[in-house]
Amino acid sequence: MRTQVGIIGAGPAGLLLARLLHTAGIDSVVLESRDRAYVETRQRAGILEQGTADALRAAGAGERMDREGLRHDGIELRFARRRHRVDFPTLTGGRSVTVYAQTEVCKDLIALQRREGGPLLFGAEALAVEDAATDRPRVRYRHRGRERVLECAYVAGCDGFHGVSRAAVPPTVARTYERSYPYAWLGVLAAVPPSHDELVYARHDRGFALLSLRSPTVSRLYLQVPAGTDPAAWSDAEIWDELERRLETDDAWQLARGPLTAKSVTPLRSFVHEPLRHGRLLLAGDAAHIVPPTGAKGLNLAVGDAVALARALIAAERGDPAPLAAYSADRLRRVWQAERFSNAMTALLHRPPDATPFDDRLQLAQLDRVATCRAARADLAEAYTGEPFTGGDGDSAVP
Amino acid sequence: MRTQVGIIGAGPAGLLLARLLHTAGIDSVVLESRDRAYVETRQRAGILEQGTADALRAAGAGERMDREGLRHDGIELRFARRRHRVDFPTLTGGRSVTVYAQTEVCKDLIALQRREGGPLLFGAEALAVEDAATDRPRVRYRHRGRERVLECAYVAGCDGFHGVSRAAVPPTVARTYERSYPYAWLGVLAAVPPSHDELVYARHDRGFALLSLRSPTVSRLYLQVPAGTDPAAWSDAEIWDELERRLETDDAWQLARGPLTAKSVTPLRSFVHEPLRHGRLLLAGDAAHIVPPTGAKGLNLAVGDAVALARALIAAERGDPAPLAAYSADRLRRVWQAERFSNAMTALLHRPPDATPFDDRLQLAQLDRVATCRAARADLAEAYTGEPFTGGDGDSAVP
Repeated sequence: MRTQVGIIGAGPAGLLLARLLHTAGIDSVVLESRDRAYVETRQRAGILEQGTADALRAAGAGERMDREGLRHDGIELRFARRRHRVDFPTLTGGRSVTVYAQTEVCKDLIALQRREGGPLLFGAEALAVEDAATDRPRVRYRHRGRERVLECAYVAGCDGFHGVSRAAVPPTVARTYERSYPYAWLGVLAAVPPSHDELVYARHDRGFALLSLRSPTVSRLYLQVPAGTDPAAWSDAEIWDELERRLETDDAWQLARGPLTAKSVTPLRSFVHEPLRHGRLLLAGDAAHIVPPTGAKGLNLAVGDAVALARALIAAERGDPAPLAAYSADRLRRVWQAERFSNAMTALLHRPPDATPFDDRLQLAQLDRVATCRAARADLAEAYTGEPFTGGDGDSAVP
Repeated sequence: MRTQVGIIGAGPAGLLLARLLHTAGIDSVVLESRDRAYVETRQRAGILEQGTADALRAAGAGERMDREGLRHDGIELRFARRRHRVDFPTLTGGRSVTVYAQTEVCKDLIALQRREGGPLLFGAEALAVEDAATDRPRVRYRHRGRERVLECAYVAGCDGFHGVSRAAVPPTVARTYERSYPYAWLGVLAAVPPSHDELVYARHDRGFALLSLRSPTVSRLYLQVPAGTDPAAWSDAEIWDELERRLETDDAWQLARGPLTAKSVTPLRSFVHEPLRHGRLLLAGDAAHIVPPTGAKGLNLAVGDAVALARALIAAERGDPAPLAAYSADRLRRVWQAERFSNAMTALLHRPPDATPFDDRLQLAQLDRVATCRAARADLAEAYTGEPFTGGDGDSAVP
């Protein structure tokens, strides 16, 4: 088989890239090792930056998001039993975020691709990217029991942290940066309307808790647990009890309980692979970088990568190689800002197992700073809602 | 001997407190273990927040400061060979800082006290604060070879980190919070005009460097060195060479060298003692809290403590005990904000000996954030120039 852009992975980055290329008249083939049901149900993120929502709309994938997604104008920081709202529009000049689950984004993009896009092969397991540094890169993959080859002009590695794309960048060229955290998130889905109309990020002596949602009737809740925790070690009642403790307030707020429909543990990790380009192989999304989930940046980075990569490939097809040459450096600047923010939010809210009394006081002082200093709150709100996607890096210039 | 307020320590906190009490007609005695020459020459800080400068003016100790002090409207952050200015007035609604050495502040306050204040005894070594929890606290001290007792209505412990006051708070009541850093500052005085007209805070792979000044003709320079470094291990030429390396830029900027007139190593430490009050003993300045010098907060905290304590003691004398009852909690909120800021500035600029490549990238991303995001820069500028001294805690309210 032969195509212009071989795309490995049918997550948000790969699917959106295929869609944007199709719109510009560029052929692609998407190879996804899992089956469609798996891709459409695996629980991931659910907070879309304004730029992400805009990009999905521009790609023609915003209809259901605009109907079912929930616009959120702020978050609540909860600590020392007090509640502090961070209001996004007033702090950022009008920006907000949209709550719409990654699974739904994927469903929408898959339906679109099926209706009017190029080949999207499920159960097609990429084995290796070959000859990435030449003009004729290839993807070896297995599909329906047979090994096959996809010949391409470009390969987009959108196959996540455990994918094979990254391995095609030679070790002499690649550098990786990593941090693992001594805690993880025990996450549950609960069939109960969320107990607050915005996300609640809670810092507590017993550890972090997050009250989130997937829809008006489905709550998504998280507890900081030690790394390596077995989700089966926590009964449903224990989870609710612990959420209640960590989300305690000094007012009449109450946590509504309901049946848990899913329970899992996610490790917290930071990871960056540099560069994002090797010859005609381009990396995007989790294949190149992982952030801890505290800042809700993973999905947004993947979408930002896809938008920038689509633009760069379209420009290259039209004879302008500059955006493709700049892709890695431009996106890495954004990636490192997302790593910075995710790490800062994680440090702000989690209680490390070896926290000293000094560390605790300092953390509370930092939360107090955000609660009382408008500039500190604006810094957080701008990073949370995200910079616009337009331009090379989009950061505001020094005045 | 008997007085209203026994003040232990003739640093900025003790001297300013004595001055403010005198102005309100309240007697005090200041006991200082060192001699006058020592107090007037020991090198300490030199950056006054606007609130600190205002407080010294209001105390009648601002005349020479206004003549000789240098108004600074910003600092420079230097990293990756680039230079980024943080402009204080535009970011804070008009605030700035004043460069005027702590030694000069002390000289001015000592001269004032000698001219029109109460007793200020040099070479008077406080041995212990006794009966602090009663109505008749006392300070035992040694002066001119004899042990003596100062009977007081209140005792102000302004005797620094190594003083005896803090020990009078029973261990059952006191809590301490501490962090030590794996690096120190090698500081030099140089008889050469500073090579830049504002302070330069430099982050470099080889470690932090700071270009500061004491006057238009005296430079003050610092290098991050491993904790426990012997200053004698560094020759003058090695110090200049290392400063030049760490302060490198991508433009024509040059470091001017000159004779070094002082050389010393200061450990970096964070320390807080809670509470600041035990009965009729009140702690102020370094006796209760230490910050690493990166944020230039130590002197300013001491002056803020003295102003708040003077107000509280004056109110108590006039029959209103509320400000004295609130002194510890009010000031501790400020103290923790200063600890937070000093720690953040330290982490932003120093290279820990165990820094991973991920840590380095994150640090550069944070510096990039400050350089490109106005809100992040405003957060820094507001903390650096300091909140006004008025009111209980002076923090701006949540909008």
